[in-house]
Amino acid sequence: MKTDLKALTNLIRYDILQMTTAAGTGHPTSSLSAVEIMTALWFDGYFHYDSQDPKYIFNDRMIFSKGHAAPLLYALYHAAGWIEYEELLTLRTFTSRLEGHPTTDLPWVDVATGSLGQGLSVGIGMTLGINLQLKKLGGLGSRAGGSPTAPPSNVAGKFDLPRSRASTDGRMKRGQNLTRTPNVYVLMGDSEFSEGQIYEALQVASEYKLSNLIGILDINRLGQRGETMLGWDIETYEDRIESFGWNTIVIDEGNDIDAVQSALTKIDFEGSKPTMIMVKTKKGAGISSVEDKDGWHGKPLPKDMLETALKELGEIDTNIRGIVEKPEKMSNDKSQMTNSYDLGTMKFEIPTGDMATREAYGAALKLIAKDPRVVVLDAETSNSTYAETMKEVAPERFFEMFIAEQNMVSVALGMSKIGLIPFVSSFAAFLSRAYDQIRMCQYSAPNVKIVGSHAGVSIGEDGSSQMALEDLGMMRSLLHAVVLYPSDPVSTIKLVDELRAHHGLSYLRLTRAKSGSLYEINESFPIGGSKVLVSSDKDEAVIIAAGITVHEALKAQKELAQNGTTIAVIDAYSVKPLDTQTIVKYATKTGNVIVVEDHYPDGGLGDSVRQALDGLDVKFFTHLAVGKTPRSGTSADLLNFEKIDAEAIVNTVKEKLSQCQSF
Amino acid sequence: MKTDLKALTNLIRYDILQMTTAAGTGHPTSSLSAVEIMTALWFDGYFHYDSQDPKYIFNDRMIFSKGHAAPLLYALYHAAGWIEYEELLTLRTFTSRLEGHPTTDLPWVDVATGSLGQGLSVGIGMTLGINLQLKKLGGLGSRAGGSPTAPPSNVAGKFDLPRSRASTDGRMKRGQNLTRTPNVYVLMGDSEFSEGQIYEALQVASEYKLSNLIGILDINRLGQRGETMLGWDIETYEDRIESFGWNTIVIDEGNDIDAVQSALTKIDFEGSKPTMIMVKTKKGAGISSVEDKDGWHGKPLPKDMLETALKELGEIDTNIRGIVEKPEKMSNDKSQMTNSYDLGTMKFEIPTGDMATREAYGAALKLIAKDPRVVVLDAETSNSTYAETMKEVAPERFFEMFIAEQNMVSVALGMSKIGLIPFVSSFAAFLSRAYDQIRMCQYSAPNVKIVGSHAGVSIGEDGSSQMALEDLGMMRSLLHAVVLYPSDPVSTIKLVDELRAHHGLSYLRLTRAKSGSLYEINESFPIGGSKVLVSSDKDEAVIIAAGITVHEALKAQKELAQNGTTIAVIDAYSVKPLDTQTIVKYATKTGNVIVVEDHYPDGGLGDSVRQALDGLDVKFFTHLAVGKTPRSGTSADLLNFEKIDAEAIVNTVKEKLSQCQSF
Repeated sequence: MKTDLKALTNLIRYDILQMTTAAGTGHPTSSLSAVEIMTALWFDGYFHYDSQDPKYIFNDRMIFSKGHAAPLLYALYHAAGWIEYEELLTLRTFTSRLEGHPTTDLPWVDVATGSLGQGLSVGIGMTLGINLQLKKLGGLGSRAGGSPTAPPSNVAGKFDLPRSRASTDGRMKRGQNLTRTPNVYVLMGDSEFSEGQIYEALQVASEYKLSNLIGILDINRLGQRGETMLGWDIETYEDRIESFGWNTIVIDEGNDIDAVQSALTKIDFEGSKPTMIMVKTKKGAGISSVEDKDGWHGKPLPKDMLETALKELGEIDTNIRGIVEKPEKMSNDKSQMTNSYDLGTMKFEIPTGDMATREAYGAALKLIAKDPRVVVLDAETSNSTYAETMKEVAPERFFEMFIAEQNMVSVALGMSKIGLIPFVSSFAAFLSRAYDQIRMCQYSAPNVKIVGSHAGVSIGEDGSSQMALEDLGMMRSLLHAVVLYPSDPVSTIKLVDELRAHHGLSYLRLTRAKSGSLYEINESFPIGGSKVLVSSDKDEAVIIAAGITVHEALKAQKELAQNGTTIAVIDAYSVKPLDTQTIVKYATKTGNVIVVEDHYPDGGLGDSVRQALDGLDVKFFTHLAVGKTPRSGTSADLLNFEKIDAEAIVNTVKEKLSQCQSF
Repeated sequence: MKTDLKALTNLIRYDILQMTTAAGTGHPTSSLSAVEIMTALWFDGYFHYDSQDPKYIFNDRMIFSKGHAAPLLYALYHAAGWIEYEELLTLRTFTSRLEGHPTTDLPWVDVATGSLGQGLSVGIGMTLGINLQLKKLGGLGSRAGGSPTAPPSNVAGKFDLPRSRASTDGRMKRGQNLTRTPNVYVLMGDSEFSEGQIYEALQVASEYKLSNLIGILDINRLGQRGETMLGWDIETYEDRIESFGWNTIVIDEGNDIDAVQSALTKIDFEGSKPTMIMVKTKKGAGISSVEDKDGWHGKPLPKDMLETALKELGEIDTNIRGIVEKPEKMSNDKSQMTNSYDLGTMKFEIPTGDMATREAYGAALKLIAKDPRVVVLDAETSNSTYAETMKEVAPERFFEMFIAEQNMVSVALGMSKIGLIPFVSSFAAFLSRAYDQIRMCQYSAPNVKIVGSHAGVSIGEDGSSQMALEDLGMMRSLLHAVVLYPSDPVSTIKLVDELRAHHGLSYLRLTRAKSGSLYEINESFPIGGSKVLVSSDKDEAVIIAAGITVHEALKAQKELAQNGTTIAVIDAYSVKPLDTQTIVKYATKTGNVIVVEDHYPDGGLGDSVRQALDGLDVKFFTHLAVGKTPRSGTSADLLNFEKIDAEAIVNTVKEKLSQCQSF
């Protein structure tokens, strides 16, 4: 029996209106415009999903980039029989899974959305992730009895997977037993199409020939405060999207279920381009009191208007349910999505000469590449960040993301939701470009490792624009982020592996300049630890440093020791979480703490150490940081200018000790 | 006598090579590709500029978005006779004005560049700024004796200025006495064209019909680590740029000065579209050892290669100089660019009901709009941020920037360089999207006011994606940024005016929820100040709060007072700079400090207060902040869940005092 899609759209509209009016808050009109396109994709055989097994690799994926259309998503869950009507009525209340914007509290939501313009990039990440995992699964693509055919090998990161041969319109007909590559669908609003990240995503999706990525652009003409730039100028949208190398399908009657059904048959899942379905719709479609009317963004209908609206919908079959097709079950296809991987003993020789921590990062990638889940993304700086070393050992797991940091971070998030472990690198200064994307990672149980090289004034000649001096503050401010800042090759390599094993959002700060080795290869560097590099029972002060200033602190310590002044030096490589216990111990012991860092004064290691000292009586606390606007010059020039070099540390220690004596 | 442009290009190449080899660092090849196009624009009569009067409103502007081509810029200065050859040889040394990327140390550089993809947006800001200022100047456009003609009035923010009638190719012929609208030129690289911000800028420039904005796209095919996505696929570039509503001019022989000269005559300065000059060039053009060769990004020629290269250039006329045309001098056209404006006494009635600080922001804009330099930009949220009130009083100074925060911030920076005072607003959470752009503002002597509404968990139902909980950390981490967080209508309005008068980069944090008035209209709120709301000589603790938590602190104080516990409450509305003196006074007095804020634990008010307490012996320091991932719910639900409400404060005070007594 053919599903009555029209009846389903009525139920979905009914649910959207009921739940938002019950909540007294929410976005019904932005939900209503996309009812037809979503109903057809879900219940006319396109969207394949096993709701009992959301992580299953052969599932299609569905991302609501326009997260404020959450009521539509929840209504689809209800129409699919996944949740009960009663739960809909808990929308936006404190204990409900049905939040104002979709979150990963729901098993079917891969990533939280709500900051617009990010969903397509996440979709790219999931598509690349699925394609990579399927490639690994190799012959598993065909069913028992068939001859396993490995996908053709291809250039690094570019995939050309065998497509479903079940039907030319990409729909899996029940009873057919052929392999089917999952598709990733991303619903977007027209307002968010002004976000630059969208164009970063468009270009990268076509560069990677992601034909199993399907965008849906809901062109309902109205934004939050009025008309969008392009309104219903579908032609211009189409010109733009096609110029980025996408297929386009235009549905002029986007709120006519028959027109939508008929248009969807044109999706080309077999080609080499991603497809954008452009749906001309009306905001508030189907409810004449709000349809295509300004001033109804983010407003539920008041109760009296709801009554009239429901009448307009006519009789609702509240028992009707649509069927979401399930993908075929493969036998052992989950084995590749393991959550742990033992690298065994890492072989690494300590370099005899000096080596920058960014170079050590490159060396580390070569080692951890043995874990097949590790993937590396870089924004056109891989020869500077040394991310390019991944190309030597696992080219299919290196992804050039070009100079487009926002897209890169969201892509990494998407990949992490397919069980991969992405390391994402660029100059640390430019990662600030993706702060909203990094911020949003927090809410999606992420496993994303952000790696910023060229941090601090020590980069020298390139000047202030290239110097990350706020990055520790930016990353510390996130709730659960891990922030690491190694000072030598061994600690860098060990920490990269710690990050590989740690599930979460993390940041690794790397230095451009070369420096000597401080540690032996058998030392360990747990997250949340620190290293006491020098100490004695006569310590008169403790220097707490990280990264490049550890070397300055050691130089200062030697000079002071020659003059009979004994101080301790701590390498606080784990800026967050900080090794509070050790810091407190030495602060208490000496009563004289000097923190030195290559970062602006606020937000970095200094603030982190201060937190550790809450309520302690530390007579002297000095913070040496980058207090003046830096400029071009040599690394030494800059460290000296900012008074964060050995000389400044020596002078500070002397000054504080003389104050201490006169105290 | 016609300037010998070919000889000038030789001199410029010579300078680029000499200065970078002397520096031993820098980007000669990225400079060489754009030599012909820049030489023609500068010295063939297009670029009009008075180097003695860089702020002159009738100057054209020139932005090097590809800031790493700084050697080319400096070579142009030398070819124009603005700087000496000897200075070129100081490139990238510590005391030189000639930094690795252009900075505002040079009088002719309006904004520092070096973080790619931002220049076009800055150019939009400068163009909008120039056009607005010229509109204000009105009849000044025509010379004495002519009849002043005011530009036609137009829709808010959209300009249709009278164009030069001197010649159809836009060039001002010497001796002609007609008005000329300045043009803004932006040089971009092809690698940076993958930044999403570029597309945000393209769409907004055409939306505002900025025909006096001229982009130059140097398509030299090679990025830092290899070929760009599009290589020399000029047609695709053209399709994309045209689809965004721009004129395009393609120069296939971009390193042939005759071809370039001839193509430039096609610029349409008269129409209603911005123009992109697309120049197909070779990286390292003119020097065969590096021309169109990979692996030469950011590398100067070693001395031996330099010798050969210089020979290849042939004889150099080191005395030749080009002429940059100067704009006509108007009589009193600088009067509108005043640096101060006295608003007189502001009339404002304290609302009798509750009012959110975002609403007060709207009220403030109406008042400060009397200062003609104030402009307001918003990213499609003006009905939520209340920025829309500006439309009521000065529609021509309200700029809808749509959902594209990166472009918005850079546009504001550009406007500020034309003497305007931009207030830039969106939801605080989404301003994190523009962190790199905000970061870059620091290096351009900016006057930009960032305004973030809907901060904190107190926004309630919309959920975590919409809650700014890292924004104080993000903004505090910048070196000289002012960070303000008012708690009531009066303080908001006063602080908005403080920001208007303060020249610099600043952030104002606003709350969604309504709250009561705390202050009288005659109170003042200096930047760096605070308000002691409650205190007595018996204070047993001090609560330091800001924004919404001030109200919770006051509730807690009342409840505690009823039970005989006396505490002080401080409104630390100036998070940075903090009122250290007052904080220290109360911390010393009570020895019991409780900071409470609607922000994640790191980077915000807590860290700011800790800095003030460096070296002080404060027995009890407690920090109440958002320590759990928030979710949808009512404002009260969330404040309670995160333990930052009155109840949590009361409990903390009681607990600390009991510890204190047992101490």
